[in-house]
Amino acid sequence: MPGPLQADNRNVILIIGDGFDDQHVTMGRNYLVGMSGKLGLDRLPFRASVQIETLSTSGDPLYVADSANTATSLATGGITNIGRIATDIHDEDLPTIAERALQKRFRVGLVTTSSLTDATPASFLAHVSARSCEGPEEVLGSTYYGIAQPACLSDARDNGGPGSIIEQLLDSGAQILLGGGTKFLKQTTIDGDSVRDMAVSRGYQVLDRNTNLDNVASEQPLIGTFDDETLEVRWRGTDARVGEPTETSWLHHLSDYLGDTEEPEPMHCEANPDYEGTPSLASMTRLALRHLSADNDRGFFLMIESASIDKESHKRNPCGSIGEIEQLEEALSLSLGFAAEQGNTAVIVTADHAQAAQILPEPSLYAHYPIPIYSPGLTARIITPEGGIMRINYATNNGFSEEHTGANVPLFANKVAGRWLKPFLRQREVHDAMSAFLFEELTVSETTAPEPQ
Amino acid sequence: MPGPLQADNRNVILIIGDGFDDQHVTMGRNYLVGMSGKLGLDRLPFRASVQIETLSTSGDPLYVADSANTATSLATGGITNIGRIATDIHDEDLPTIAERALQKRFRVGLVTTSSLTDATPASFLAHVSARSCEGPEEVLGSTYYGIAQPACLSDARDNGGPGSIIEQLLDSGAQILLGGGTKFLKQTTIDGDSVRDMAVSRGYQVLDRNTNLDNVASEQPLIGTFDDETLEVRWRGTDARVGEPTETSWLHHLSDYLGDTEEPEPMHCEANPDYEGTPSLASMTRLALRHLSADNDRGFFLMIESASIDKESHKRNPCGSIGEIEQLEEALSLSLGFAAEQGNTAVIVTADHAQAAQILPEPSLYAHYPIPIYSPGLTARIITPEGGIMRINYATNNGFSEEHTGANVPLFANKVAGRWLKPFLRQREVHDAMSAFLFEELTVSETTAPEPQ
Repeated sequence: MPGPLQADNRNVILIIGDGFDDQHVTMGRNYLVGMSGKLGLDRLPFRASVQIETLSTSGDPLYVADSANTATSLATGGITNIGRIATDIHDEDLPTIAERALQKRFRVGLVTTSSLTDATPASFLAHVSARSCEGPEEVLGSTYYGIAQPACLSDARDNGGPGSIIEQLLDSGAQILLGGGTKFLKQTTIDGDSVRDMAVSRGYQVLDRNTNLDNVASEQPLIGTFDDETLEVRWRGTDARVGEPTETSWLHHLSDYLGDTEEPEPMHCEANPDYEGTPSLASMTRLALRHLSADNDRGFFLMIESASIDKESHKRNPCGSIGEIEQLEEALSLSLGFAAEQGNTAVIVTADHAQAAQILPEPSLYAHYPIPIYSPGLTARIITPEGGIMRINYATNNGFSEEHTGANVPLFANKVAGRWLKPFLRQREVHDAMSAFLFEELTVSETTAPEPQ
Repeated sequence: MPGPLQADNRNVILIIGDGFDDQHVTMGRNYLVGMSGKLGLDRLPFRASVQIETLSTSGDPLYVADSANTATSLATGGITNIGRIATDIHDEDLPTIAERALQKRFRVGLVTTSSLTDATPASFLAHVSARSCEGPEEVLGSTYYGIAQPACLSDARDNGGPGSIIEQLLDSGAQILLGGGTKFLKQTTIDGDSVRDMAVSRGYQVLDRNTNLDNVASEQPLIGTFDDETLEVRWRGTDARVGEPTETSWLHHLSDYLGDTEEPEPMHCEANPDYEGTPSLASMTRLALRHLSADNDRGFFLMIESASIDKESHKRNPCGSIGEIEQLEEALSLSLGFAAEQGNTAVIVTADHAQAAQILPEPSLYAHYPIPIYSPGLTARIITPEGGIMRINYATNNGFSEEHTGANVPLFANKVAGRWLKPFLRQREVHDAMSAFLFEELTVSETTAPEPQ
């Protein structure tokens, strides 16, 4: 696939598992390879822990992040408030590693299972004050479940700004944009054309669900959107079941120590029928690697996001998250294969923030006490292929969507990348290490041989 | 403090933070050094992630552990069922690294803020079928909150066995036993003497709360118990407050979308008055290091446990857990100072299993939605010294004590230890690495200079 090693050719592949904290890593491992098994990422030679930093609008510390401010840290090396896309708390634009890469003639690609306009990919090539400003309509204001979402009036092209996220992505010069977000291509820009037309005018070949990604051989930059917003996930619980409450008998309502409970029945993970026809993260990654590396004597920066580890955890759907972890593993495997062949390729896997799911004892540690013991949240009991029952708990709030959590997150790297990293990093230092690797001058000793990962 | 470096002298200091997973590490960091600060353990040059393995009584995988089976893995390299102390699921004894060290003329010490008979220390020098068999009374059966606890009849000296945990500790030949557990010294053995008398007959000097640990200069082996069972913790929430429920208005009981909520008020961490007179983990560690290294040309194995990170998380008391993390940091600092001076000392910090506490957003990510959003569990909002509010959620069950959780746990090591470790380890492999370091023959190159940590 790649050409011969070039002395001044270096590549960064940054794989972001959204919400992929250690509970989710372990959940994926237990299901996909068993309690004593090893994931592909467990075989990587370098591992670190990443400290997340978030600021309030007035610059005070916040202890839990969202995907916008964390992707901003990874993309720019800055720290900002929740919801901001590559802008600081004073709304100043923060330059991104992907922009610098393009300026220095590296190619750039963003690949995601979310909408291309979602916070994680957006933060690498757009600058807006709020993550909700995804398209030319939303930049002027929108609602979500009837709730007004922030507009980004000064960013709107109507007001002389650079436009919504999708417009900024198309103006960035990136060679690869693959993910969801067809909805935003259908919107109309201030010029009266569709965003899709704008993409064509910027030189993009536009791909959709009818495209066979393995056959794309164009030298044009590519934008592909394969669903209206987020791509469907590969797996779901039996009959679309997710986390469910434990039912308690009427006697229990009289006293905490009385009555019976009925827990949700165990379930399997099964294929999600809605996933049919959705390109896998691996197939998008394969196309991106082929396109970015073809006749490229400079190198590239590629961000690959497995977005729905987080999104399915918000929905209390562990099988959805686990299927996305499998997708991440497949994209990692391709990336490591590329790196082994190409050399000079830093492969980094990390999470942006921690998430709600917890693996709980099955049965409870207190099951032998003669009182009803149950989670006050929602429970999913997943039957694993090795024959265990993995109990997942979602109990961060009572609402329609779980909360993120505040733990530091894991980072995994191949040997090339590991040299630039330390075992404990602030999230913004991941950006600094990638920049140092990509943009600093090579020494002769570093160029003589491809590194095994 | 230590003598000159001996060519065949090597030491292992294993520091176990009970329940010290990444949520708790981050909780401790946020409070003790701030969101952007670094703990002592964050400065260590090696970090890994540890995979926990637990078996059901029939040998099937379980995805959440307890401190007994995980300490057994660390101490013996074996895998077993919840509640077992250095015995496998068939009740066969598993030899421990501490026993092998004693056989090979290394000295051995156990230091803990729990009772010396609690699962973590017990698993290094005792073999019983159930963790509840702490003293000569309990080995024959006991109750806890009125619930019958397992007996260990075949282990009882009454039945020709090696005795309860405390009796096995005293027969082990360990040089240092420091922690809680005075209650068990007061019990009577089958010989009609107290366990304290048994300790004296085995050559131990017995220390208690009246002993100034800095003045102990005896060459006798030492047992010190400084509280009846677990030592009191250093900190508590304001006025002993812990996690509390969110109160909801009557209107909310009509509909999830209506009514108001009243969240627990923020609180500070304050000194726990019951801690007065309790020796710190650091003061016990200082005595242990001095005693174990004095005129020792062979080396030692020292296990230091900060036990109440876990125990206070069970009680939904974040300030209790954070004070214990501070104690762990102090013990680590002493251990690293010792290692820097002595050389050939492997210092490893790890957790046994993950625990219930989660750091949640303050306010909720969904606070701008006009419906009541709150945790179904218990909330503590801790005012941090840097002026933030860190919201801790406990929601693994409705009962009197939170559940453990199933994530893999972090491991931190100095450079000496890091050479024997990999970035991803099964918990039993931590045992294997410590054994290899301690018991394998030294090569000349490894002995020529002390290693900086």
